[in-house]
Formats: sequence, structure tokens, C-alpha cells
Amino acid sequence: MADTAPSATIDPSALTCPAPLRDQPVVVLGHGGGGALSAELVAQVFAPAYGNEVLAGLADSAAVTLGGARLAFSTDSYVVRPLFFPGGGIGDLAVNGTVNDLAMSGARPAHLSCAFILEEGTELSVVARVARDIGAAAEAAGVTVVTGDTKVVDAGHGDGVFVTTSGIGIIPDGVDIRPQRAAPGDVVIVSGPVGLHGVAVLSVREGLEFGVEIESDTAPLGGLVAAMLAVTPDLHALRDPTRGGVATALNEIAAASGTGVVLTEGSVPVPEAVANACGFLGLDPLYVANEGRLVAFVPRPHAEAVLAAMRAHPHGRGAAVIGECVAEHPGMVVARTRLGGTRVVDLPLGEQLPRIC
Amino acid sequence: MADTAPSATIDPSALTCPAPLRDQPVVVLGHGGGGALSAELVAQVFAPAYGNEVLAGLADSAAVTLGGARLAFSTDSYVVRPLFFPGGGIGDLAVNGTVNDLAMSGARPAHLSCAFILEEGTELSVVARVARDIGAAAEAAGVTVVTGDTKVVDAGHGDGVFVTTSGIGIIPDGVDIRPQRAAPGDVVIVSGPVGLHGVAVLSVREGLEFGVEIESDTAPLGGLVAAMLAVTPDLHALRDPTRGGVATALNEIAAASGTGVVLTEGSVPVPEAVANACGFLGLDPLYVANEGRLVAFVPRPHAEAVLAAMRAHPHGRGAAVIGECVAEHPGMVVARTRLGGTRVVDLPLGEQLPRIC
Repeated sequence: MADTAPSATIDPSALTCPAPLRDQPVVVLGHGGGGALSAELVAQVFAPAYGNEVLAGLADSAAVTLGGARLAFSTDSYVVRPLFFPGGGIGDLAVNGTVNDLAMSGARPAHLSCAFILEEGTELSVVARVARDIGAAAEAAGVTVVTGDTKVVDAGHGDGVFVTTSGIGIIPDGVDIRPQRAAPGDVVIVSGPVGLHGVAVLSVREGLEFGVEIESDTAPLGGLVAAMLAVTPDLHALRDPTRGGVATALNEIAAASGTGVVLTEGSVPVPEAVANACGFLGLDPLYVANEGRLVAFVPRPHAEAVLAAMRAHPHGRGAAVIGECVAEHPGMVVARTRLGGTRVVDLPLGEQLPRIC
Repeated sequence: MADTAPSATIDPSALTCPAPLRDQPVVVLGHGGGGALSAELVAQVFAPAYGNEVLAGLADSAAVTLGGARLAFSTDSYVVRPLFFPGGGIGDLAVNGTVNDLAMSGARPAHLSCAFILEEGTELSVVARVARDIGAAAEAAGVTVVTGDTKVVDAGHGDGVFVTTSGIGIIPDGVDIRPQRAAPGDVVIVSGPVGLHGVAVLSVREGLEFGVEIESDTAPLGGLVAAMLAVTPDLHALRDPTRGGVATALNEIAAASGTGVVLTEGSVPVPEAVANACGFLGLDPLYVANEGRLVAFVPRPHAEAVLAAMRAHPHGRGAAVIGECVAEHPGMVVARTRLGGTRVVDLPLGEQLPRIC
């Protein structure tokens, strides 16, 4: 978001909802959606309050130098409902989400902290299942949970289990991956089919059937990023398209770097089941959350080799080129349609699907 | 807690409450109280699930080596109610609590992450006030908030504002402060009067008046610890007596180290207003939470100089020797009464005052 925060173009009245509350703005679900309202909250409330350069460069994780080591440091809270869904649960998300935020700076994820806010009356067996999922996901991701905390709130003031993980990792020498580095000439690659996580959670939450069970794509991406870095340390920008989906990730990188992004319509891999579900629900798969995917901005000379390395990795088998960066329309994402026309791909205001992660 | 986790002595049925639920154990408020139920949750649920050596050594923060740097890494969630109280608010707690956890390993706190879980409908002005408090407290503590996250839950599934902070800091060379190092011969020092935080929160929450307004002691302790380390790097153990108060902190260190602790009754500084309030409420000040205090286990030869350095620091002016470590009754805390008798100072089961931090 940084200096070119998209919030500058948002009507302040959009902060308030419903209309009668405009004189007394309140938190709405969209403030947690990762879209324009979230960006506005950061730009208008958090950044001025904390104000420092690292925060202002808002990437998925912060890069700091401590004791001579270049570290990535990241945090996310998880409030997904339901706690368990096809393909995973809040425990997997809490590990993979934070591991992936670290990996998006090129860091090798190393250690996690894990803090629970439990609602009084929640079955301990549920807490134990989440903890086991966290342990298994940490092992799969090659990280260790080294510290934690547990708070309990009285019944009716929480929702079963909330988990907040933070993570630290080492950024290898010579690696400088951040949204600001995306530039005209970069090739935009997505690591696999999109929309699975959001649709998987929604289907179980709403009791919908789409003929075939859709599983979340939740996965740790540290290994995939390491494989890409083995091709070249000169990756420009990486982002995991979680809340707000691929469209939001592309918009954030376009805004931060001031590059234009052209998306080739039809090139984004959307599984048929996701397409069908989104059609039924009136959703655009480009805006649906993923938890095991990344978008990469790669200098054109390296693009083919990086794509090949991704496809050779279990978490990048479905990788595809979906667009490129251009000097035109700086900061904007535009889709080029099959008929040669173009349309703007906006930053969403909030999130189509609340409590998806 | 570690190998000598106090949980070994707890009746498993205490996990379940009320009795009719014993066949289906559920989370009770005491699981978040920092006492025996919390220890049991860690020992029986989290440690087996995450299992690794760093976690097993459970201190206030984890010590890890990353990129050649010795780091302390810690996390805490904050669910205090109300959000603002005499002397501070959830924002101060979220900064000072995590800064202090880092400082208790001797680390110099450096960077924080800050994750919000907001309830839909919360006034944005409240969120902004919390954020400003976080910024001001971070500045006072000499740390920077470098990364964050915001999630929103639907109304009725949260409670205004929950904050989770994590922190990283550098552990200076030659410093090895951890509960396991407490040993017979150590002098036990508390940095100031106890019980203020818990009573301050309770008084405003319950609308109680004790004649004089009692303010929370919330404060960052990194500077105080640095002043103590300037006297000697050989401090054995430090702990900030938050949930469960001084009694819990002493019990945890006694259990982890296997040393006996003798507390000299009457030596613990308790402000008159706290004593009066605790008398009225039926609380023991030794078990009431503090947010700007520490207990230190210092080898006897250094004790006098460390005490003097503490008293010369703004956050240690009220420091006092409150006891010593002995070879007798290993792992137990005993109070020596004014009349020469002794009584066991137990680990509490839960927390006398829920949602105090």
C-alpha cells in the first residue's frame, strides 16, 4: 500500500455503514476483508499511530535487521468459520498463512508463535484438534512453534477458537522481494488454480453442494519460493492472494510499484467446480481467497525458467503465466478480454466472503 | 513449566467445570488465568502437539538463534475488559506485556507485530484510540510496530477489540536468564508495589470505589532490566508477575528450577489502597496481576548492587527484597510468617480475576 495507498481514491463515507451511523463511524466486516476498507484503516488509523518506515512499506511481512541478521517478521489472526472445512482447518491456515507471508519476502520461515483466544465452553477436544493441526502443519512447513499464549473470554464474547500466529524467518543474502520492485516488463505468474479455499469454506458454511467436494488449497509455500529463488534471486514481487483474491494482490502490487498490470483474460486457471460455484453464487473467482497460491512478478529473462521450476514443485504444478507489467496505466490492473477489449480490475471495497481465514 | 510442569499434581477432573460436563471437558475461564489450569492446557494439549525443545523450556519468551543472532521471541493476546482503565488501556498492555516478556530473558526488545480482532459495530474512534495508545507505548518502550493484521468478526462473536502482539529482541552475549537457573542462595527481589493493575481494572469494571483512585502499574521494563544487567550479566531468572501475580511467578520459577523459595511475609510491598481493596474483595494481593513489575532471582553476591540499580531506575524505585532460594522443599514456595511459622504459597488453579489482561 505504502505511499501510493489506494485509500486516496475512496469516498470516506464508505467507511460508515449503514448510512444512519455515518456520524459515528463503526467497524464493518469489510474492514477485515483485505480490500480498500482494510487499506483505508491502515492508512488512516494504524500507520499514523505507529508511523515508521518499515510499516509504511507494508508488504506481507516486515523486513528488519536484528543482530546482523536480515529477518522477515509477520503476523495474522485467524477467525475462519467453521473451524474445519474440506482440505483443512483453522490450524492449517494459522501455520500456512503466516509461513506464506514470510515466504513472500523470499525468507526461509523458521519459527512461529501461536496465541489462542478461546471462548468459555468450547470443547477441549476441539482445541486439541486445532493444536494437532498446527503441529502437523508446522512440521510440514519445516517450522517450529516456539512460544504461545492462551486467553479465555466469557461465553458469548468470542466464537470458539481464534488463533493468532506470528513468524520469523531469514531473508537470504541478495534477495530483495517487495511489492515496490514490480516493473514494466515483468511477467506475472500464478502458482496454480485459484478460488478453491474461499469456495471450500463457503460451501461447508452454507451447506451448499456443488456436485463435487471442493477442497481448500491451504499449503505452505516456503519450499516453492526456495525453488524459484534457486533459478534466480532476482524475483521482483511475490504475494499470496488470500483475502480479496488474485485481483486484490495484483492491485496492491500495482499500487505500491506504480506499474501497470495487464491480465490476460482466460489465462487464470479456475477449476471447473470453482467456476460453477462462483457462477451459482454470483462471485468472481479472481476475488476469492486462496491459501496455498502465490502470484509472482518475474523479470522476463527469467520467466520461463522460473515457471518451469514452479511446475516441477508439488505446490506449483498448476503454475501459469497470467499477465505482464506495462508502462501504461501506472498503478492500475486491466484485463485484456478475448475479443481484444479491456476492463479495469478494481480493488474490492471489502471481502465478498467474511471470515474466510 | 518445562519438565517439572506443575500440572503433574493436578486432578484431571479439575479441567472440567461444571460437574455435569465432566464427560465432555470444555474450556473454562481458568484455562486463561495463567495458573495450574493454564499449565495443564500447555502440558497436555499444546506441548504434545507442537513438541520441541524450545517450547518445552517455556519461559516468558522463546530464545532462538537465527542468522547468527540470539533472539527472544514472544507473543500474548489481550482481551482485557474494559478496554480503558485508570493508568492505561489495552493498547498499553499489548505493548508493555510483550516488551516485558522479551525483557524477562534479558533481551533488548526491538520490534513488535500487532494483530487486531475487531467486533463489527465497534466505534472506529475506539480502535483509533487503542492504536494511538499502542504507538505511544511503543515509543516509550523504544520499540517499533513493524507489521500487523486486522480481522473483523460479526457482531456478537467478539468483544469490541482483541489485540495480539508478538515481539522480537536481541539477547546480549553472555546473558542466560531463564527460570531453570534459579538456585539456592539466590535473593528474590520484586521491582515495586504489587497488585495495582488487577485492582485498577476490577475497580472500574465493577464500579467500585476505594476512596482513592488506583492506577494500573503498566510500564515497559526493558530499561530496568538493562540497568540490572549493567551491574552483572549473571541474573538467574526474571519474570513479570502478570496473571496469577507474584505467587504464580514464584511457583513457576520454583517448579522449573527445582529450588525452594522462601517468601518473607510482610516484605512484599502492597500499597495501602490495594490492601484495602483486596480485603474488601476477599483477594490476596500476592495473586493479583501486575503489568509493570518483575521478580528477579539474583545470586547473593550481586543482590545489593542490583537492588541499588533497580531503585535508581524510574520503574524500580519501590524495589524490595522479598525472599530467598533454599535447598529445602525443592519446587515449593513457602511464606515465613512474622511469628516464625510457615505456610505453603500454592499455584492458583485459575485466575481470581478473569480478563485482566
